[in-house]
Amino acid sequence: MTDTMQALLHPRSVALIGASPDPNKLNGRPFHYLRRDGYEGAIYPVNPKYDNIDGVPCYKDIASLPEAPDLAVIMVSARLVDDIVMALGERGTPVALVVSSGYSETGAEGRQKEQRLIETARAHGVRICGPNNLGLISAFDRMAATFSQYAFEPPLAGPIAFASQSGALGTGIAYLARSRNLGFGYFVTTGNQADITIMEVLERIVDDGRISVLSAYIEGLRPGDGASLVHLASRAMQAGKPLIVTKVGRNKTGARAAQSHTGSLAGEDRVFDGVLRQHHVIRARHEEHMLDLMSVLSRCPVPEGRGVAIITQSGGSGVLMADRADELELDVPILAPATQDKLTAVLPHFAATANPVDVTGQFLADPNMLSDSIKIVLDDPEIHICVVWLQLMGQYAATLVDLFKELRESIDKPLIICWVGAPESAVHALNEAGICLLETTERAIEAAAGLARFGEMRRRYADHKPAVAPPVVEEAKACGNAEPVNSLAAAAALMAYGLPIVESALAKSPDDAKRLASQLGFPVALKIESADLPHKTEAGGVRLGIADEDAVALSGEEILSAARVYAPDARVDGLLVQKMVEPGVQLVLGLRQDPVFGPVIMAGIGGIFVEILDDVVFARAPVTPDEAKRMLGRLKARAMFDGVRGAPPVDLEAIIQLLCNLSDFALAHPQVAELDLNPVFAGPDGAVIVDWLMLANNGSLNALRPDEQKIA
Amino acid sequence: MTDTMQALLHPRSVALIGASPDPNKLNGRPFHYLRRDGYEGAIYPVNPKYDNIDGVPCYKDIASLPEAPDLAVIMVSARLVDDIVMALGERGTPVALVVSSGYSETGAEGRQKEQRLIETARAHGVRICGPNNLGLISAFDRMAATFSQYAFEPPLAGPIAFASQSGALGTGIAYLARSRNLGFGYFVTTGNQADITIMEVLERIVDDGRISVLSAYIEGLRPGDGASLVHLASRAMQAGKPLIVTKVGRNKTGARAAQSHTGSLAGEDRVFDGVLRQHHVIRARHEEHMLDLMSVLSRCPVPEGRGVAIITQSGGSGVLMADRADELELDVPILAPATQDKLTAVLPHFAATANPVDVTGQFLADPNMLSDSIKIVLDDPEIHICVVWLQLMGQYAATLVDLFKELRESIDKPLIICWVGAPESAVHALNEAGICLLETTERAIEAAAGLARFGEMRRRYADHKPAVAPPVVEEAKACGNAEPVNSLAAAAALMAYGLPIVESALAKSPDDAKRLASQLGFPVALKIESADLPHKTEAGGVRLGIADEDAVALSGEEILSAARVYAPDARVDGLLVQKMVEPGVQLVLGLRQDPVFGPVIMAGIGGIFVEILDDVVFARAPVTPDEAKRMLGRLKARAMFDGVRGAPPVDLEAIIQLLCNLSDFALAHPQVAELDLNPVFAGPDGAVIVDWLMLANNGSLNALRPDEQKIA
Repeated sequence: MTDTMQALLHPRSVALIGASPDPNKLNGRPFHYLRRDGYEGAIYPVNPKYDNIDGVPCYKDIASLPEAPDLAVIMVSARLVDDIVMALGERGTPVALVVSSGYSETGAEGRQKEQRLIETARAHGVRICGPNNLGLISAFDRMAATFSQYAFEPPLAGPIAFASQSGALGTGIAYLARSRNLGFGYFVTTGNQADITIMEVLERIVDDGRISVLSAYIEGLRPGDGASLVHLASRAMQAGKPLIVTKVGRNKTGARAAQSHTGSLAGEDRVFDGVLRQHHVIRARHEEHMLDLMSVLSRCPVPEGRGVAIITQSGGSGVLMADRADELELDVPILAPATQDKLTAVLPHFAATANPVDVTGQFLADPNMLSDSIKIVLDDPEIHICVVWLQLMGQYAATLVDLFKELRESIDKPLIICWVGAPESAVHALNEAGICLLETTERAIEAAAGLARFGEMRRRYADHKPAVAPPVVEEAKACGNAEPVNSLAAAAALMAYGLPIVESALAKSPDDAKRLASQLGFPVALKIESADLPHKTEAGGVRLGIADEDAVALSGEEILSAARVYAPDARVDGLLVQKMVEPGVQLVLGLRQDPVFGPVIMAGIGGIFVEILDDVVFARAPVTPDEAKRMLGRLKARAMFDGVRGAPPVDLEAIIQLLCNLSDFALAHPQVAELDLNPVFAGPDGAVIVDWLMLANNGSLNALRPDEQKIA
Repeated sequence: MTDTMQALLHPRSVALIGASPDPNKLNGRPFHYLRRDGYEGAIYPVNPKYDNIDGVPCYKDIASLPEAPDLAVIMVSARLVDDIVMALGERGTPVALVVSSGYSETGAEGRQKEQRLIETARAHGVRICGPNNLGLISAFDRMAATFSQYAFEPPLAGPIAFASQSGALGTGIAYLARSRNLGFGYFVTTGNQADITIMEVLERIVDDGRISVLSAYIEGLRPGDGASLVHLASRAMQAGKPLIVTKVGRNKTGARAAQSHTGSLAGEDRVFDGVLRQHHVIRARHEEHMLDLMSVLSRCPVPEGRGVAIITQSGGSGVLMADRADELELDVPILAPATQDKLTAVLPHFAATANPVDVTGQFLADPNMLSDSIKIVLDDPEIHICVVWLQLMGQYAATLVDLFKELRESIDKPLIICWVGAPESAVHALNEAGICLLETTERAIEAAAGLARFGEMRRRYADHKPAVAPPVVEEAKACGNAEPVNSLAAAAALMAYGLPIVESALAKSPDDAKRLASQLGFPVALKIESADLPHKTEAGGVRLGIADEDAVALSGEEILSAARVYAPDARVDGLLVQKMVEPGVQLVLGLRQDPVFGPVIMAGIGGIFVEILDDVVFARAPVTPDEAKRMLGRLKARAMFDGVRGAPPVDLEAIIQLLCNLSDFALAHPQVAELDLNPVFAGPDGAVIVDWLMLANNGSLNALRPDEQKIA
């Protein structure tokens, strides 16, 4: 059987269905490009209107083709596409690019049409890239099977692979990349992604030795795409290559029904962002940021740390860049005395040498001042990246370009040139030479930060190599069917995974509660136990800090009658009696089945922080101890863990263990749709879960129901 | 007496001291530029080496000049400058541009030289612009008295005034502005700013009818500059013109000794940022942001609101822009049904009409689709700004440019074009036509946000017109001398300004405390009273919630002995007895004398929030009720005021009143260097100051010491 991705990216033959001899027409473009660029495979135009196109035989239909083409580019009206796909399948063509539009992008009817197309394709063994895309370019093969305006000029082959759902924005990015002399070895648009996804394409490209940077522009992910994205990310790290992703929709909260706190906090993008960080994917906020990251990551070596030296010819711009570096958590360390001494030896006496280094305007008289300074700062072991700021210098363009070209041969750390108002000749020459040039202070520092971040990802990956393929988990059921699991059953299930639940017992009556409270020891908390009342506090069903037996009995009666008023039909199982716990730092932890990423784990600082600041982070299960630690480190109020106002620091290891156990629990229980552990109290000697709410899908309740009445 | 600023910006004659006939030399440039551009005033080169320069008589010294020049440009070695300034003063020249370097930028010796220069200048009645600057350009007068490379081509006169401390970065910005066809009517570099500041220059320009945008690049402010900046801001708002400021050093915390919490939280930039917001100044984060704001503010009308319509030819870029708009708190409202109906009538059936509007690729066949769509969305009363996204379109450049030019004549709301990979011809033509073009999604939306913000500032200014000139306050003494004021004296002073202090009384002994506590009513708090122990808690000097007389006596003894152990030599005035207050939302308020801005007021949410999140904001006194409200609205945890977990909302008016009273207090007490009100408890029925620490300068204590023993 033919390898689909091989056929798509490196076809030995391409059929152009609906080809036109007019290169100015959309359906004339691919033929024109393939011939212009010298594509070496066979080209089979298919169009009953022509005998030949520009001397190449043109076929009246698929059946007439001399062989089954590896790749078919379908450029005809949508109503004809299904028959063509069928015919291709019969011939044995493994994959078709359907650039035709009129599918799901046009509404309900189009969605049905797309569904039929995919069914037809599956039935006939044809994979589909598209529909409604702009085709693809495999630049090393000089194979531009595309409508994209980007191919108006022959594609520039290079170390970047770029896959884009959007043809329009993708073309804009590709065009701008070329204007910086950044070559795209692969430029694939996937359009409606009815079948082949960006992830599948890039995964094929990961090990291509000619590619050093992978990038994707994503408009939306479907169920199942999450696992592919994570797998791709893991393969990219294995290959030591950065994966840059831009995804739109970063502020839209998924409009899903959520009964738990975790569910409602798990905005689509918050989960996406958490998973990307977890899996060492670099997120670009917009197209220019993506281009800048492509540039710096394809043109600079990977730095060993976050230390940046800034060299300028103007004090102010140095401070401007240092400001931004500080915001992006780069270090701009004061240079070591030995380094400063060396700088003093080559610079005017009034030059600043601490970092930022100001070489002053004098360097124009002696350009070696600049190159010496760069070499000197890069020799400092605390400096991992050098950013040089220049402005204008029209008359010195050639000198400076030569200087940078020479320098590059003698240094092995990243050098980023920030040249404001750079003369066009310098821009061209530096891009030509593959030297990283960014024309504003902001962008230069952002690029340095991206580079430093990738260096850290690589080191972290090397230190904590995760399982290559994340475990396959049963696909989550829709959350809509999830129902609350009773507290004892839920607690038992959680405890089986080492999750520390507060000592609790279920009382059948207020009197029973007295007895259990005495056994547990005062003070105790009393809570209504009813799967019909998941939100106990609202139902008047919670009393805390009860000091003695009589108060227990009284509180128990009050809780039961409040519940009867609140929800007369609720089935009440009894009263949960719990030992009171030292408050400590209040956490809110949880899990939910994300439709895209499967089980995701949430960690947050509870109480006011989660309510007021949405102080929560997400990661996808499995969560390693290292990842759990990083999750906690991303919380806004993380300083709470260090102990505020003389409080001792909390037992971070216990929280980390708890998150890992929660992750194990999540992987083992796909039927648990949502779980809140809220609050969890963390102190110097561990963490305890004080309240919990578990929602599981229908029919899975009994399996979790334990026989025991008492917990811990 | 000649008007200095008139002479600087519109000189009738310019002397060029040290002029060279060689236009390639720095000191040859100004002569060359003035002649090239057709400056209409008299030009007097001064240089004993030449009889004439290019036919213009050259004078051997100042004394030989036929008249006192309005402006002198001094381009000689620093060692000669003082004598020249003296001679100029004797002739009656009001102002000199000292472009010579070798002053404070070079270190201690240079600082002395600069001090001598300024003393000489003052003694001889000459104002100095510089030294160490690149001169200035008054473009309407075709007067380029500068070394700047920007003048390699004749300056482009236009509606923007730009003043920059940095010559280098300023030149870069000016150059980039011209490349966008943005004209600088004035471009002034102020260098070391030994005398004339950016503020003084811009204040003169504010009312120039040819100028619509004021902008400044600031590297540092000196004591006294704060008031000028605020005054300039106020004049700009009166004139209805935006003032854009970039200031470097935004992350450096001032390295000043601070004894109070307020003092230590008042990082230099935090105060600066607060004052800018308060006084309607738009802050640009970096040079490109500044250029984008110049472009949008000089080219678009001021919008009436924050409603943005986004029109694209690609869904993804629309979402990308909507994401960013959301982050910048712009509205991207769903268009009204009537508006959508009108769009549906002109667009293909599968076009998206909700907002973002996707006109689809079809508009290339019928460009009216695009212009009609823009007109339709701008007719929607909820839409105040339209952003149009395009990419590439080389072959349609002329058509689209014409379309936008025509459109501009028929719409009166802002239109921002975001054209990714725009063809050079289109960039040129749109800039030429003065249409706002930004070439990335991020920048287009940032510009829209800047525009919307200026609209809001103008409306707010119109609604709450502040006093034109802020009151003159006595200059603050150095904080180093400030000493704690005893609590009762401080409380009396605060209460005189309506600041609500908790009921308190000073006990001379534990027994005395019993009596006072009974009078106040239990529970009470007991605190050590000693000006030598400003940090009472650390000294073991605070007990809260004391329930009865015996406990008061016991606690009193314990506090006194703890204090004796903590600081045996501390002078103890007694024990402060205070009524306990309902906690409510904990605020931390304060004031400090800022060396640049004078008295500044701080507001923050206390406890954990201020400790963990630095959740504080600053404004300069006087603080109006409107400004106080905005300060509270800028706090990260502002949602606390609405009442969390069923708590009632706090009495915001009471906090606002408290801040205004604090501001009045600050203005009336320049001798109070720092003041903490921490905590202040705010509840539904007001706010109460529970603890306070006042630091005042030497010799001002007695004036505040009251006779009373009891407060409230």
